[in-house]
This record gives sequence, C-alpha cells and structure tokens, in this order.
Amino acid sequence: MQENKKKIGPGTYLYPMPTTIVGANVNEKPNFLAIAYCGIVQHAPPLIAIGLGKMHYTNSGIKKNRTFSVNIPSEDLLELTDYVGIKSGKLVDKSKLFKVFYGELKTAPMIEETPLNLECKLVETLNFSGNAEIFIGQIIQTYAQKQILSQGLPEIQKLKPILFSMHDNNYFKVGEHLAKAWNIGLKYKNK
Amino acid sequence: MQENKKKIGPGTYLYPMPTTIVGANVNEKPNFLAIAYCGIVQHAPPLIAIGLGKMHYTNSGIKKNRTFSVNIPSEDLLELTDYVGIKSGKLVDKSKLFKVFYGELKTAPMIEETPLNLECKLVETLNFSGNAEIFIGQIIQTYAQKQILSQGLPEIQKLKPILFSMHDNNYFKVGEHLAKAWNIGLKYKNK
Repeated sequence: MQENKKKIGPGTYLYPMPTTIVGANVNEKPNFLAIAYCGIVQHAPPLIAIGLGKMHYTNSGIKKNRTFSVNIPSEDLLELTDYVGIKSGKLVDKSKLFKVFYGELKTAPMIEETPLNLECKLVETLNFSGNAEIFIGQIIQTYAQKQILSQGLPEIQKLKPILFSMHDNNYFKVGEHLAKAWNIGLKYKNK
Repeated sequence: MQENKKKIGPGTYLYPMPTTIVGANVNEKPNFLAIAYCGIVQHAPPLIAIGLGKMHYTNSGIKKNRTFSVNIPSEDLLELTDYVGIKSGKLVDKSKLFKVFYGELKTAPMIEETPLNLECKLVETLNFSGNAEIFIGQIIQTYAQKQILSQGLPEIQKLKPILFSMHDNNYFKVGEHLAKAWNIGLKYKNK
C-alpha cells in the first residue's frame, strides 16, 4: 500500500449508492422503506439484492407474500423519501403517503409518484448472522413514466434519481455526462 | 397503474449503478473487471454482493482463493475502467495495467490508482440458474487515499466516482448536493 493511502476499517464504503423505496404489504397494508443497500446481481433473468436490518417492519411482509417492489424516486420526492427512511411502519401508517398500484404479482405495492418501479418476486432470503436479512428478488416487470423514456429506455437525466453517500449521510444529484460505456475504453488499446 | 406509466418489461433498471473494478487473482496473476452489478447488502458485518456473468475469467479466481476486491475508480480512470470491462482476461493480460497491492487477506489484488479499495472475503457463492454467479463478500478492510477523506470518511465529491446508466450505456459524474439524509425528511412530519 502506498503512503498516500490509509486503512479506514471495514465498512459499507460503496459510492454512490442508489436511493430506493422498497414496498411490501405488511399486515394487509402497503408499507414503504427507504433503502440504499441494494444492487443488481444478475442480468438474465434480472435479479436484485436488498439488505434490510432485521428490526425493520417490512421484512415479515416480504417473507409472507414472497413479493416486494423497488421504487426509484426522483429528486422532487426527496423529502418524502427521506421520511420513509426515518419513520418505521411499526410506529406510523405509511400506507397513505403515496398513490399505490399493484401489478402482475398482485401483492407488491408500487408507488405511482416515482418514475420507475421494479416489481419483484422473492427468490431467496439469506441470513449470515449479521444485522440484516438479504432478499434476492427477480424483477418480473418494470413500470416507467412515459416522460422519462427515450427510445423505450429510461434516461437517467430525465429520471433524476437520488444518489446516496452513506456514513456522512448526504444526498446528491446526477451530474454531467462523461462518456459512452463499452466505447471510451477502446481508445485505451490503441495506446 | 396510471395512464402516464408504461410496462417496459423485466430488466435491470436500477439507477444509478456504481462503476467498480473487481479484482481477483486468476492463474497466479491479478485480473481486473469493470462491474456495475454490485451493491451493499448488510451493514454489520459489512457485506457486498457482486454479480458476474458465468463466462467471466475472474470467477474461477474468486472461488479458488475465496477473496476478491472491489475498487472504486474516480473520473480520471474512466478510460482504463471501461477498457477492463471490454477486454477479457482470457484474451489479454490485465495484470500490468495498474499498480497492485495486497492487504490482510494476501490474495485479493487491489489497485493503487483508485481512491478507494474494499478488501473482501468470500462468504457465499450463489447460482440461480441464470447467466451469473453471485458472490457475497465480507468487507474486511477499506483502503482510502488520504486526500479524499474528510474527518476520516470518504467524501463523494473528492472521490469523484463514476455513475453507470445500464441499457443506454452511459457514464455520468456525481452532481450537486441535495440535502442531508435522515434529516430533510423530518420536515415532512410537520406538514
């Protein structure tokens, strides 16, 4: 290790993290929870992994129905997104905060106000004796606001997702375009 | 579902994704691969999940050594980062592209040039009959360039990580600060 580096200890130092709202039906009502511990883990069929602290109210609903949603809020939903990360469904009824709709799985509540919704079928629950339960879901349908699409695909600068910086606890916007992927690297081989 | 929404089919529509470089020793040499299918799944002990297509050269090394690294490149490494996502270790020797160092696990190669390195011990390999193998790693140490730290923590605007937008295949910068997390939402409850 070079002198300009320092060990800062084990920790969840991944940058950036996405800001998502996980939805599940709990005790017959939709409940929502802001989550940044979330990542895609397989392309086909599409799988997403989310990690939820064991104390969360949402977990029992995911396990009972074997469905959940991952909703991607845009910047204009920041205040409410942060709110559903602060307040537990054990203490407050979050079922009326959003307009809710259901899709093909019937039991995964999704949020109309977020520009993008991933409807997920639970394929595995993992527990490694830590503080979280890890849920792996297969994305069986995606719902997108028409105005964020370009040639049928979500466009990140129209979607305006919220970046999360864990540990210092800050939200950021998406910034400027840098380059095309699987493209700019082709320049390297010519060197 | 409201009229302004459209089903776009199942897919890995999570925004943004991080741009990372996964490192592993393969056939006694360090190898590196750009990966966006990656997310934190547990806070304590810290766990990270990565999904690698089964055809990738890196997988055998992760399984053999039971170690890997997740390196977070900054914008200035964009070209080389994209390159290691394009070229397979089966075809080109990527062991000399970076200055490599090893940490406590001895077999997880890490990149000096990236401002942040997560050193990981494999805790589980998952296979759901799709195109990928999913590796869950425990982050046992983090190495950070001193100049990206503020009060001992990485600062995202100094780190300058690269955002990835899958499907349209574009890289973006981190943008402006929006708000403090676990804070801005407190305004909501007063409404």
